[in-house]
Amino acid sequence: MVAIVSAGISRFGKRSESIFDIAAESSLPVLRKHRNDVDFVIVSNAYSGEFNGISGLNSLLTSYLSLDKIPSLKVDNTSSSGGTSALVAKSLLESGMADSVLVCGVEKMTEKPTREVAGIIASLLPERERSAGPSLPSLAGLLAKLYMKRYSPKREAIAEVSVKNRANGALNPISHIQKVLTLEQVMESKVIVDPLRLYEFCPVSDGSASILLVRDEDAASYGTKPIYIRGAAIASDTSHITDREDLLRINSVARSGREAMKQAAIDRPDFAELHDMASILEIVQAELLGFFHEGEGWKAMESGRTEIGGDLPINTSGGLMARGHPIGASGIAQIYETYLQLRNEAGNRQVRNAETGLTLGMAGFGNSATSFVLGVSP
Amino acid sequence: MVAIVSAGISRFGKRSESIFDIAAESSLPVLRKHRNDVDFVIVSNAYSGEFNGISGLNSLLTSYLSLDKIPSLKVDNTSSSGGTSALVAKSLLESGMADSVLVCGVEKMTEKPTREVAGIIASLLPERERSAGPSLPSLAGLLAKLYMKRYSPKREAIAEVSVKNRANGALNPISHIQKVLTLEQVMESKVIVDPLRLYEFCPVSDGSASILLVRDEDAASYGTKPIYIRGAAIASDTSHITDREDLLRINSVARSGREAMKQAAIDRPDFAELHDMASILEIVQAELLGFFHEGEGWKAMESGRTEIGGDLPINTSGGLMARGHPIGASGIAQIYETYLQLRNEAGNRQVRNAETGLTLGMAGFGNSATSFVLGVSP
Repeated sequence: MVAIVSAGISRFGKRSESIFDIAAESSLPVLRKHRNDVDFVIVSNAYSGEFNGISGLNSLLTSYLSLDKIPSLKVDNTSSSGGTSALVAKSLLESGMADSVLVCGVEKMTEKPTREVAGIIASLLPERERSAGPSLPSLAGLLAKLYMKRYSPKREAIAEVSVKNRANGALNPISHIQKVLTLEQVMESKVIVDPLRLYEFCPVSDGSASILLVRDEDAASYGTKPIYIRGAAIASDTSHITDREDLLRINSVARSGREAMKQAAIDRPDFAELHDMASILEIVQAELLGFFHEGEGWKAMESGRTEIGGDLPINTSGGLMARGHPIGASGIAQIYETYLQLRNEAGNRQVRNAETGLTLGMAGFGNSATSFVLGVSP
Repeated sequence: MVAIVSAGISRFGKRSESIFDIAAESSLPVLRKHRNDVDFVIVSNAYSGEFNGISGLNSLLTSYLSLDKIPSLKVDNTSSSGGTSALVAKSLLESGMADSVLVCGVEKMTEKPTREVAGIIASLLPERERSAGPSLPSLAGLLAKLYMKRYSPKREAIAEVSVKNRANGALNPISHIQKVLTLEQVMESKVIVDPLRLYEFCPVSDGSASILLVRDEDAASYGTKPIYIRGAAIASDTSHITDREDLLRINSVARSGREAMKQAAIDRPDFAELHDMASILEIVQAELLGFFHEGEGWKAMESGRTEIGGDLPINTSGGLMARGHPIGASGIAQIYETYLQLRNEAGNRQVRNAETGLTLGMAGFGNSATSFVLGVSP
């Protein structure tokens, strides 16, 4: 078992700084206290080659951070890189191969125009599906259509995800998007992929988040209030969306999430950070994780149960939708928010009396997913 | 402790097949016997985005191999990706997070012209050094100059590395380059970076290699003659070559190699696969690993001690120089050759009575290095 003993995050958004400066912004607060403890660095990043023309990012970053002698590697699992990196960190610690692992998730996406970014990200789809036209946003649109057909939700309830996450994001000083939105604004924004609209998708962002992980038994010596990883799991499903029996049944999400909760011995967490790349995904994921009955997640959204004051707050950080989604950083940013909440340091978006929080990262359209349950006790 | 229970390799060279077909060529022989055992897949690859326009390679590959439900991730540490992946596999096994890990190293480089490939690989150098002009081959040239100035070796002894490795490669059916070379041919080939000549550099290649790793105690149930990983280490040094006190002193190589030998409780291995990206590197690395005294590696080369029949054979496979250097594949290909030798399956390039073999992979110009000691017993 492992624990998080320090964490940092950068401002998310369109940044003019280099990818190294952005990564340093979240890592230096950790290194300021623990520079001499770190004995391994994992960089979570998916596209530094394509977006920034940089390879070997892990070695360049450790040199940039004056950690030249510290071994490092880069983990890539596209949008689930952050969670996957934390999982590798956990195994390095539990196997005794390292005693203290800094995981830095970072991506700088805004160097390229949005259309080009979307094309690069679509390179994670199988060629036969890519050439047939689908992109990740269009799959989200298809998912929304299917959900609406099967369960007849109020259309507005889906859009409420964006309203809620934008409201939460406005309370988070590092969020990419700081503006709140009304339901009307969401419903009147441009249709991107029918039925989903512009404000129902996450933006293209730059940003980084860092965490320092150690073994449970070493955590006390690192200072106040470690946060424990009580469950951690990764699961996969076919990359060929057309091979899936049911598009709504994203197996990797259900399996990784349920496994992490099983390890943590909980039925549901007190709050969660989900992978709201599009509004509909938050609802579908919450159902797959067993937070709500199938086809009823939209009701929980409508009735405010997932707001900060609700009985199962989701994406208090603002989620991918408002905080932003720098691909390699998102998974670590979710863990950062959970760490903050469990330490009672989330300021005016603080969840009350929370003892466990869940994070879910999804690669591609569920090719892979990683889930963590964090807790105030082991 | 972990062991290798199955392995495969593709033909190296300029391949017309897709990166998936190349990866399958080394993975399917392993899966044919052990498909139902594999519970984690690590893909070692550095440049699928830049070279092949593909991201999320790990998920696409598991789907291609009909391993849809098997979790996977991609490890990147440029030229040391293979060794780094094997290290992550070891930690997944030792921490109990997985019971049987397939590591597939693959790179398809020849889709792009050689000049473009060199430019992409140079993106692992720090910007200030990149803009000043150095590339990896020019650093190798500088290393050769320094070595010659300091130790006054016979120039021909350095070129002998190429002659030897080409001769070994001609005995290896999967080698990219199958032609032997005379010393005269090497010494008369075009100067690439003074004093090094064309035939003293590895070619640009496509290829893949795969290994299946399990915990020691499970190895017996997988079949005949497992090969044990007795030592495994990673070490780093600054990416800023100009910050190094002594270019000849590649600290990451010395530290990772000596640590792996210490873990294995040996002073030197019976044979080794080194990172002969350029002829001079094999000599310098052999000295850094303590195989020969400083400044005397060239004598061992000249006297034939590192040939297959010598007392410390190096690069029996043909090395990067002849087998080829598909970046993400090389480290696993080194382990593959060592596995083959230790199982007495290396045919007409078989080393006699070997009980231990060492592999060394180097990222960048020693930003990072990984070393393994494999043995016939734990």
